[in-house]
Order: sequence, then structure tokens, then C-alpha cells
Amino acid sequence: MNTVDIINKTKKSIPLKDNEIKYLVNGYTSGEIPDYQMSAWLMAVCLNGLTENETVSLTFAMRDSGDILDLSSVNDVTVDKHSTGGVGDKTSLIIGPITAACGVAVPKMSGRGLGHTGGTIDKLESINGYRTELPFDEFTEIIKKTGFSIISQSKRLCPADKKIYALRNVSGTVDSIPLICASIMSKKLAMNTDCLLLDVKWGSGAFMKTKEDANRLAELMEKVGRASGKKCRAIVTDMNEPLGNCIGNALEVRESIELLQGKIKNRLYDICIELSANMLELAGKGNYDDCVLMAKEAVSSGKALAVLKETIKLHGGDERICDNVNLIPQARFSHVICASRDVEIVSVNAEELGMASLMLGAGRIIKDDEIDKTAGIVLEFSVGDKISMDAPLMTLYSDIGSDFSEAALRAYNSIKFRTLTSHALT
Amino acid sequence: MNTVDIINKTKKSIPLKDNEIKYLVNGYTSGEIPDYQMSAWLMAVCLNGLTENETVSLTFAMRDSGDILDLSSVNDVTVDKHSTGGVGDKTSLIIGPITAACGVAVPKMSGRGLGHTGGTIDKLESINGYRTELPFDEFTEIIKKTGFSIISQSKRLCPADKKIYALRNVSGTVDSIPLICASIMSKKLAMNTDCLLLDVKWGSGAFMKTKEDANRLAELMEKVGRASGKKCRAIVTDMNEPLGNCIGNALEVRESIELLQGKIKNRLYDICIELSANMLELAGKGNYDDCVLMAKEAVSSGKALAVLKETIKLHGGDERICDNVNLIPQARFSHVICASRDVEIVSVNAEELGMASLMLGAGRIIKDDEIDKTAGIVLEFSVGDKISMDAPLMTLYSDIGSDFSEAALRAYNSIKFRTLTSHALT
Repeated sequence: MNTVDIINKTKKSIPLKDNEIKYLVNGYTSGEIPDYQMSAWLMAVCLNGLTENETVSLTFAMRDSGDILDLSSVNDVTVDKHSTGGVGDKTSLIIGPITAACGVAVPKMSGRGLGHTGGTIDKLESINGYRTELPFDEFTEIIKKTGFSIISQSKRLCPADKKIYALRNVSGTVDSIPLICASIMSKKLAMNTDCLLLDVKWGSGAFMKTKEDANRLAELMEKVGRASGKKCRAIVTDMNEPLGNCIGNALEVRESIELLQGKIKNRLYDICIELSANMLELAGKGNYDDCVLMAKEAVSSGKALAVLKETIKLHGGDERICDNVNLIPQARFSHVICASRDVEIVSVNAEELGMASLMLGAGRIIKDDEIDKTAGIVLEFSVGDKISMDAPLMTLYSDIGSDFSEAALRAYNSIKFRTLTSHALT
Repeated sequence: MNTVDIINKTKKSIPLKDNEIKYLVNGYTSGEIPDYQMSAWLMAVCLNGLTENETVSLTFAMRDSGDILDLSSVNDVTVDKHSTGGVGDKTSLIIGPITAACGVAVPKMSGRGLGHTGGTIDKLESINGYRTELPFDEFTEIIKKTGFSIISQSKRLCPADKKIYALRNVSGTVDSIPLICASIMSKKLAMNTDCLLLDVKWGSGAFMKTKEDANRLAELMEKVGRASGKKCRAIVTDMNEPLGNCIGNALEVRESIELLQGKIKNRLYDICIELSANMLELAGKGNYDDCVLMAKEAVSSGKALAVLKETIKLHGGDERICDNVNLIPQARFSHVICASRDVEIVSVNAEELGMASLMLGAGRIIKDDEIDKTAGIVLEFSVGDKISMDAPLMTLYSDIGSDFSEAALRAYNSIKFRTLTSHALT
């Protein structure tokens, strides 16, 4: 087989055979196929796409490039969830404990973030002592005890994905639905849980900017998941507004705990119940409506919070934060932005808010950047709210510096206001 | 400026600015931009194309990556010719002397061949003693004396093209009209002659398989040439049949000399007169019809042959071959293919014939392959000819081995016959 011939086929939109895709993935992973051939092929995929069969072959070849987890020692049904992520998306920290509290095991590996949002692992690492890198045995033990654990992505899973992902980042070949699908699904299939829920977000704060693209990605991932024999469901959710009021790693841990304490009943709560119910239904816990009630009860009874607390403890983290959120690390500096006149919030650009949060230190621009775990933004509004002049719109946090001017401007400009007459407000 | 942003623009068909293209070409040539980014960009160009302005910018940036020749010491008008090449294309060896004999200087740099045909330099190197690498001063001196010289492509001209061309070969990014245009034109513009004739060949024996593609390439090259301020003309010629009866390096030198001796008046002769007349007209030697007469007279008078002879001598080559073609190196082995019945030649696949000639040793599969200068094929027919049973169709030559079976089969299968009744032949 010849790499240039394979590249030329994709360039001419001639579908590749399964063994050609394996040759490409294995050759690239082993270093026999050089970067410059792989990046040319990836660009051809970006522009010409792949068929569903090719996407399945690519995903499976990537999955098979490393270890596949053996979760057979876990007695409960196992469910994994993947969210395509977005500004303020902390759902993993919430729905894992909810689902586990209902008797379904949730073993999860997550990544660190690149760009405006920290990843789930960054969020967990803002908890003092929490170890995100555990041996596989310890990971399984925690799942058997609490039903829930999140560790950082193992290097032994999907080495092909790691290498291809790094190349895509530097070769302008990121935005391709089949490549995104194969990257996500290869890792999820290597996790080898019984069921898989995929949460595809769309909107200004998500990677998929349009609902159409999100639908295409969701459909494709579902097909690939089912081709592998997994129970697999993909749902599409809105990420035009940030998810919840907090953006930034420690701030999002705080919000997650407060939600599990039963103190928050906003859009974030609704989405977490929806996702948990889907996972429970997939795992065979009953029909959807029953699963919604089960999930709500897991929160109101405090059972989900207890799962999180025990999991944090077993990970070496400071579990006392589940009773007292003030023990979560806090930034030294803060800055309140107030409304300069009576306004109604028409919309907010979640991506811009994410960028402001990145400027505060909450995200990474390049891979090795250090994150300020305490940095971020707390919003005091939801879209549609009316805010009086001088009332707070949001608070910015940073542990690094007290000059908030640039980030504040960007955060402020992310909001679209409608000026109200004082009459309209009362 | 950021390379990934530039790649993404081309991926989205957003035209690049002149300085972005310069950044790319200069960065790649200097090694700052890695192969994997350049190959991704080249693939985006293959699939999305470039605008005319972008093609001009790319060509100029590549031209400016190295030396630009100074031919001001040559008093005559200078003309360069480029042919996109094909099976049996030896026109450079013929029209250079014809044009020079008419008082127009033809300084030429050529390449070695890759694939089924040897390049012009390979052909010249089949002449004993001929030096294809000369210092620039000596090259200019020969042009001043005889009006004609061909040396091998200088490494100091267009280093960007050399590096990009090598990458295209191994990344499946060869077949793109703007990239082909920029590769050819950057070298030609760095030659810096007053006029430039471009001979774009199409057909089974040429790189452009369809007349439409050949027309597009011709038009684009003409535009780029004119944008640089040169007198530039592109013509499109047919390469469905091999050009002339000989394929193979020494064999083609022999055919060229025999043509300049006035012994050959076939399609090759007609095309050489047409090309020469175009070059003379471009150089201001008169209207086209006068130039045709001038070119014919240069052959019939022996003046063109005298130019070639003197040029070979000044290059250190055995100039006696111009009087006695038997002094040209000849293969030790030969094999005659005869017609197995009375036939008419319906068509011939020039590319397949080229491949047969490659199998005999006349071309290179990889860059460092040694060529058998004497290997090749001599055709005994033109398309449309009627050949009686047992009469020779072609002779194969090789200096390396006497087993002609594979090459003979391929050469034979390149011909489409129509069987004749013996009645039809008489």
C-alpha cells in the first residue's frame, strides 16, 4: 500500500477501504508515515469529508491503536458521557454523582482544556489534593465503591488520537465533522462502557456554531457508536449562553457543589437532570419520566452530593468543600462590573465571555500554559433579566493581578443590552 | 502573521494577500514553516484552487527566493521556451538551434526527468563529454557565440520551487493547475529572458490529460508572464501520440540531429517549425508567416545544425555526432516487435509507451535512479498507417538486459489495431 495513492484517493473523493485507513492510522502512529503526508490527508478530509463507513473505520483504527479498558469487574451497568464542551460546561461534575447515586456506574476520563475553557481535569485540580492521575486498579476500585470517578485521559488509550489531534491543531485541520467524531468516539469506545451518552453543544460558546453542524456530528457519532455495538444516544443542547452563572475552574466546582446541595434550580440544573435521565434510561433504569424523577431525587435527597464527597475523598481531595464551599480556593483579586443604566439583557456571546475569562488566566493559549484555578467570571444575570443602573452585572476574579481593565471591557462587550426607561423597569 | 490562520483562509477559499503568500513561501524555504503545514496548505490549494492574483503572488515569491539571471551582456533578444513535456518530447534540442540560427538568443536551463521520460538534461548527457553544469559566465559566453545553450537547472534559482516540488511529490499535491503554473513560471521568470514561449501539451502522453486543463494552464501562465512584464505567449499542442518516432535519451538526440539534417519531415518537424516561428515572432523578427519561412530555411540551409554542433563542442561534447549519428552511444540489445497480422494503427497510448520505455531503463522511478541513456523505443509507424503481417511495428533498445518480454508486452498493448483483410491492405 502506498500513502500517496491513499491521499490521492481522498483528494478525488474515492472512498478508502477499511485496510487503507488502518494502514494510515497505524503507519502514522508508529512514525512510518510522516507528519507532512498525514496533514495533507487530513486537509483532504476537511475539504472532501469522509463517508460514514470511512468514519467508522477511522474511529475503530484509532480506538485499536492502544489499550481498551476492561471494566468487567464493575458489577453495575457502566455509562460514559461525553460533552463537546463549551463555556461554563461543568455538567460532568454534576451528572456523574447523580447517575451513580441511582445505581449506574460512571467511569470517566477527561482532558485538560485548550482555549477559553479549562477542561474537567483542570476543574478537578482546583480541589486541594485531588489526584487526577490514578493507576487503573485504583480507578476501578473507586468506581466499585462510589459508582463515579474521573481521572485524566490515560496515555495508553488511543495514542493515534493524541498524535493526530496534535497535528490537526498546527495544520489548520481542526474543523471537520468526521475527524471530530473519530477523535471523540475512539476515546469513548476505548473506555468500553456499556452505554454512551453524547451531549453535542451548539452556539456561540461551543465548538459547533450552528445547530445543523451539531445535528450532523450527533447523528454521525450515534452511528459510529452503534456500529461498535454500544448502546449509544446523542442529544443536541444549546450553548449560546454560558451553562450556569460561573465560568472558571474553582468557580465551577463551587457552582456544581451548590447545585448538588439543592441550592440552584436554573438552566444548568435542568440540563443536568435531562442528561442524567438520558444516562439512566440508556442503562435500563426505567422510562425517561421515571428517570427524571430519580435524578431529581438524587439531588434533593443529598445522595448525589454524598457520592461526590466520597469520590473526592478517595481521590485524596479535600472533601470538606462539599459541606463548605468557602474552602474551595478563592482568588485574591476581584472586580465588579455594574450596569451603567437601567437595562434589559438581550443576549450574551458565550465565546466572548470565555475569551474574557481566558484573559483572566482561567484557560490556556498554548498547551503548557499554567492555569489560574481561581480565575473566572460569575454572572449575576440570565438572558432576559432586567438590571437597574449600578446593580452588579458580573464579578471577575483573578489571583494573578488586579488590573481587570482589558478583560472587563471584553466581558462587558459580550453582552447585548436594551436600554430601559426608568418607568419600564419598575 | 500565523501559518495556521493562512492555511485556514485557503481552506475557506478566502484569497490570501500578497504578503501572506510571501510569508508562506519565505518561511517554508528558510525552514521556519514545517513540511506538515506546507503540505496541508498545498492540499487546500489542490482542492480549492487559487485566484489569478494569488497565483501571480505565489509565482513571484518563488521567483524571488533565489537568484535572478542577468542576461544584459547578451546583445540579441533572448527567448526562453518551456514545454510541459511528454513522451518523446525533444523539441528543445531542435527549436533552440533553429531560433538561434535566425538571430535570437536561446538561453535555457532544463531538468532531469522523473517518471517515464528522461528530461532534456538526461538527453544531452547521452552525448559523450557534454557538460550540463557550467558556471554562469561560460553559459553566457556560449550564448553570445552560438545563440544557444542548455545547462541544468541552477540550484541558486528558485530554491522555493525545489523544496515545494519535492514536498508535492510525496504528499499527493502534484495535480493543481495554479501550483504547476507557479512552479514552471517561477523558474522561467528567474531566467529573466525578454520573451517566453510556453508549449502546453495535452493528451495521454502529457501531464495534462484533457485539452480543457491544458487551456486553463496555458491561459494562467500567460497571465502570470504578462503580469511580470515579459512578452509571453502560450500555445497548446497535442501529445496523444509520442512526438516523433523515438523515445529514449540517446535515441531522441539522434532523431533531433536527423531532423536538423533535413531528413525528417513528420509531425515533429511541423511542431518544431511552429514553435520556432512563435519564438521568432515574439522576439520581433517579423510576422508569423515570415517567421515560419525563416525557421524552415534555418533547417534546410544547415544553419541550425551548425548552431547545435558548435554548442555541443563548446559544452565539451562530441560534436562529430552532428555529421555521423552512429557516433551516438547505442544499446547492446534490441528487440523488434512485428505485426502478427495485417493491421491498421487506430491509436497509440503515449503514456503506456512511455511506461514501457521506463521499464527498459530510459526513465527514473525514484530521484536517484541511474538512467540507461541508450534505452528506448523506435516506432516504425504513425497513427493511421497500415502495417502488413510480420512487418516491424517498433524496436526496443536496452543496454542492461536482453529480456524484453515485459516491456514488449506493455509496448504492444499500447497500440490499438484494426485487423485488415489482406484485400484491404493491398
